[in-house]
Amino acid sequence: MSEPLRLGVAGLGTVGVGVVKIIQQKANLLAERSGRPIEITAVSARSRDKDRGVPLDAYGWEDDPAALARRDDIDVFVELVGGDDGPAKQAIEAALAAGKDVVTANKALLAHHGQRLAELAEDAGHVIRFEAAVAGGIPVIKALTEGLAGNDVERVLGVMNGTCNYILTRMENAGLSYEDAFAEADGLGYLEADPTLDVGGIDAGHKLALLAAIAFGTQPDFDAVELEGIGSITIEDIRQAADMGYRIKLLGVAQLTGRGLEQRMSPCLVPAISPLGQLEGGTNMVVLEGDHAGQIVLRGAGAGQGPTASAVMSDVIDIARGTRLSTFGQPARGLRKARPARAAVPAPYYLRMELVDKPGALAKIAAQLGEAGISIDRMRQYGHEATTAPVLIVTHRTTRAALDEAIRGFETTGVLASTPVAIRIEEV
Amino acid sequence: MSEPLRLGVAGLGTVGVGVVKIIQQKANLLAERSGRPIEITAVSARSRDKDRGVPLDAYGWEDDPAALARRDDIDVFVELVGGDDGPAKQAIEAALAAGKDVVTANKALLAHHGQRLAELAEDAGHVIRFEAAVAGGIPVIKALTEGLAGNDVERVLGVMNGTCNYILTRMENAGLSYEDAFAEADGLGYLEADPTLDVGGIDAGHKLALLAAIAFGTQPDFDAVELEGIGSITIEDIRQAADMGYRIKLLGVAQLTGRGLEQRMSPCLVPAISPLGQLEGGTNMVVLEGDHAGQIVLRGAGAGQGPTASAVMSDVIDIARGTRLSTFGQPARGLRKARPARAAVPAPYYLRMELVDKPGALAKIAAQLGEAGISIDRMRQYGHEATTAPVLIVTHRTTRAALDEAIRGFETTGVLASTPVAIRIEEV
Repeated sequence: MSEPLRLGVAGLGTVGVGVVKIIQQKANLLAERSGRPIEITAVSARSRDKDRGVPLDAYGWEDDPAALARRDDIDVFVELVGGDDGPAKQAIEAALAAGKDVVTANKALLAHHGQRLAELAEDAGHVIRFEAAVAGGIPVIKALTEGLAGNDVERVLGVMNGTCNYILTRMENAGLSYEDAFAEADGLGYLEADPTLDVGGIDAGHKLALLAAIAFGTQPDFDAVELEGIGSITIEDIRQAADMGYRIKLLGVAQLTGRGLEQRMSPCLVPAISPLGQLEGGTNMVVLEGDHAGQIVLRGAGAGQGPTASAVMSDVIDIARGTRLSTFGQPARGLRKARPARAAVPAPYYLRMELVDKPGALAKIAAQLGEAGISIDRMRQYGHEATTAPVLIVTHRTTRAALDEAIRGFETTGVLASTPVAIRIEEV
Repeated sequence: MSEPLRLGVAGLGTVGVGVVKIIQQKANLLAERSGRPIEITAVSARSRDKDRGVPLDAYGWEDDPAALARRDDIDVFVELVGGDDGPAKQAIEAALAAGKDVVTANKALLAHHGQRLAELAEDAGHVIRFEAAVAGGIPVIKALTEGLAGNDVERVLGVMNGTCNYILTRMENAGLSYEDAFAEADGLGYLEADPTLDVGGIDAGHKLALLAAIAFGTQPDFDAVELEGIGSITIEDIRQAADMGYRIKLLGVAQLTGRGLEQRMSPCLVPAISPLGQLEGGTNMVVLEGDHAGQIVLRGAGAGQGPTASAVMSDVIDIARGTRLSTFGQPARGLRKARPARAAVPAPYYLRMELVDKPGALAKIAAQLGEAGISIDRMRQYGHEATTAPVLIVTHRTTRAALDEAIRGFETTGVLASTPVAIRIEEV
């Protein structure tokens, strides 16, 4: 049996304690599988006295995560502090400078600073691993970086924020309004302290930027992710979508097109019978499409102590086994800077609007679509008692630019009684 | 850039040609991701003159795969010959003896001889990788061996033979008899030369034995897999199951129980709304249940040139990157010999039988169940015109032994007009 692999664990929140538990509970199993013991040398957190339900006396203590990162008696710095800057970033930089490998669950940090950190790691001859940063317990970083390494990746998509999927599922299944479903999720503790991270698509956007970098060999570029949250989704849209065989999901899609790299995190309609459409509650799903492997679907818990700690441990065990991979699957300095493409890939769209209840109103809307070169797949005008008429249109495949042109045209007709809602239908 | 990794590819059937294509098409991508070029030095197949649609002139040729395995100018022997003994086995032994790493897609060989080959590899300090042997393009070996390495695995289950799932799906969706669906699959070229490998569950059983070895740290033991094929499934069972919210799948389940290792490959009912229940056609799905990660579901193409070659390349790229893993995820000589347990885990069962149409017939059957300690969840007697009455029973959780006792009891009642069909309901 070789020398033990010695960890410094910074951050003793839910995930950090989960990692401590696994290491304490499974010493033999981990040693068998890794070929060497895995030990915690020292830990760091904000408060030393807090009872975290696990014994920590055997470990050294550092108030400052960067001091932990620099300790001579650790081999791997496990960063579970969080935050896209500040202490987490400083500590990782300190770890790399001190010759340590790094395991982190920090999607925000890597989405913003991943390129620079990957270059630092490369120069230092050390690795940064981040399985826990994307989709919790699902080994999706591994599947993409290693499992699909022989493929040109055509598209990566997925539901990567369980809280949003919970809210949308509750709206659909229990008929709750967005506000009520949001309040319910909040009451269950599902929301981040700043809920726009969840419902604004930011958290999921971070994950998408990391997947895109690996999939396409490009520098992670969170600023180029087109973000749209779920706050404007109404129960009416969910019902109408369901009626036509669709479900609404906060869907991340990354795709390399002739016009550049498209990264979108936005509500989309997906077929109710597709695996993505069938995904309910807080579960995550990532779909990887390779030119040889075809479509690989991965589903599992996207958050929580056990799943996230399991992902951290997978990275730690890889390092213990001697596996050395570039942060994003190829040398950091070889990653291309992708040109961002916005909505470059055409798609069908779902359109909902209220029209004034006058003869010819619908024809005027249809004419505007025709002028923008958009053909109609399905159109419905619903029965109503008010003075305005609800209208639903599903278009054939079109670009977002043509659709926006048509919507501007709608406004000139004088028949529009509400701002049209337009939601992309992602073909999966 | 480091030295190229030099492959010898034995077997130029569908998968072998797929591997050649990827290496020829993606030289730059593979080199970027691997950190070194990946090259084919020489190949081997039965007929040298056959046109396989890919240029082979640049490669050396060996008629004998073992001679290829021993060549000084290869680093990795890629075995795509197939067969659970004979040339494939001899060639892998020759490769290990000659100091080569091995990549294979050969589930039958590893299910039968995996323990010995893993020990040979370990002694020689070389690796055997076999991602392509299980579930085609789905990186399930990697997910289990590496992604879930920090978990005690609680259960592994899945649909791992696309042909059987195709037949069952066609029976359900098109109302075909087993014979007609079988003939259709045969006409499409989906069946192995010996179709019992597919419909008898043998091929899927090989895969299950490999997954079980990794999941539980036990020696692969195909002979202990309880095998039951799909040949006895009738359209009537499929319809009745559907009516109660279930689908019938050829399901592999491996589970370590207090009584030993249970490995079953048999038709089971699964909830129609579960991911396994929703799986249609030739697709594969594997479900991994870890004590920390929870339930991870992986879905994708289980066969075909692209997916299988993608899996082979994932192993090749791992080797090129310097990743070194024990064959079954831990040292071969540390794998325990598991005691086989048969049907140790209780489950609800679906029972279908014909009873003679006499007053009290159903009560007699119910009494026998009661005597065997089995309680009834649901029972239905269907309308009929014949002199026998079709009866359906869903039991609460029970052991297979108790169920068999009850069925023997049925035979003493004199009311049985057909042999009862009993199908396990797997809780997923």
